[in-house]
Amino acid sequence: MGALTNSIPEKTIERLSEYRRTLLACHKQGISHIFSHVLAGMHGITAVQVRRDLMLIGFSSDTKKGYDVEELIKYISTILDSQEPMNIAVIGMGHLGQAITKYFNGKRLKLRITAAFDVDPEKVGKIIDEIPCYHMDNFEEIVADKDIAMVVVSSPTKVAPQLVLPIINAGIRGVLNFTSTPLNFPQGIVVENYDITTLLEKVAYFVKEADNSNI
Amino acid sequence: MGALTNSIPEKTIERLSEYRRTLLACHKQGISHIFSHVLAGMHGITAVQVRRDLMLIGFSSDTKKGYDVEELIKYISTILDSQEPMNIAVIGMGHLGQAITKYFNGKRLKLRITAAFDVDPEKVGKIIDEIPCYHMDNFEEIVADKDIAMVVVSSPTKVAPQLVLPIINAGIRGVLNFTSTPLNFPQGIVVENYDITTLLEKVAYFVKEADNSNI
Repeated sequence: MGALTNSIPEKTIERLSEYRRTLLACHKQGISHIFSHVLAGMHGITAVQVRRDLMLIGFSSDTKKGYDVEELIKYISTILDSQEPMNIAVIGMGHLGQAITKYFNGKRLKLRITAAFDVDPEKVGKIIDEIPCYHMDNFEEIVADKDIAMVVVSSPTKVAPQLVLPIINAGIRGVLNFTSTPLNFPQGIVVENYDITTLLEKVAYFVKEADNSNI
Repeated sequence: MGALTNSIPEKTIERLSEYRRTLLACHKQGISHIFSHVLAGMHGITAVQVRRDLMLIGFSSDTKKGYDVEELIKYISTILDSQEPMNIAVIGMGHLGQAITKYFNGKRLKLRITAAFDVDPEKVGKIIDEIPCYHMDNFEEIVADKDIAMVVVSSPTKVAPQLVLPIINAGIRGVLNFTSTPLNFPQGIVVENYDITTLLEKVAYFVKEADNSNI
């Protein structure tokens, strides 16, 4: 993540997003109140952590019945969501791009994937999972037309560096990059590089360490 | 990540994995030495951070020509890799499972995806991207047969909770979960929950904050 000065740490933002998802599921099941230790247990963390996160965003209406689920969802949403819905484009509609599109759409009202880009003639011009797929050559134009603020990069790794300039030129403000090449952007563009290899290597490392400590 | 006591922080492990990937690419291009600020620049971080990470793992052979690329790759590998290759299974061979398999295999000698699981009769019994796909009913048996230590969960979110018991019973030691349901395991099983929605919401939040600070 870039050098943004912000009072809410990245990890807290991640957890707030996760709490909201859990709370939405609870709400659907008709649960009206939840204790911090129950919410914590569902995320494998401590109640202290949950209370600290919510204190940080100024939510303090913990009653004897626990947090009001609906109220907490609304409160977290005021922190996380922008006023206007934000449009997202996916660059690269291979398996990963399609997984992301399928998985994400319909889940969040304030964030929506509204366009996809590829160079494969089998995909360009088609509607894939309700999302129109455009040629990468028309990137800037479509981004302007559709008011797209963020992109997900799920292209093959080797083409990812070629996407940096079009992304900058089109005025994109946030990038979630899933390729193995870390992408660098000028200040003002938020980038999150998430390489699946790194995640797997990290889990493998801690498995190895746990094994060693059991010897 | 679980409450593992370990002297190397998670974020450092992630960066070491990323440095190694960059160093391998440099090595391929015939680059023999690299300065900390160059390596840092390729990852959008400071040279101080790179030096601190390498100091933490005890690598200190910074010469006037910078770090020896080959030596540093070997050194990082002694930290990250286990002695024996670790076998991984993917549970759920939809778009995401196939993206992960395709993307990962052949990239790391010490980590390899050797089995896939699904319940779809169209997939079970087939070889998908060189990986045999088994029925989830045979999970424990195949895990034992193939000495699988880690799983990637890329199933539909709604079935993810049903996977927890089979994963525990099969003796799996590390889980990388990409579904929207955080999965909890007993201590001793390393879990990393990576929901794509969370990542997107995080980028969106920082885009919104950057916008606000520019007003």
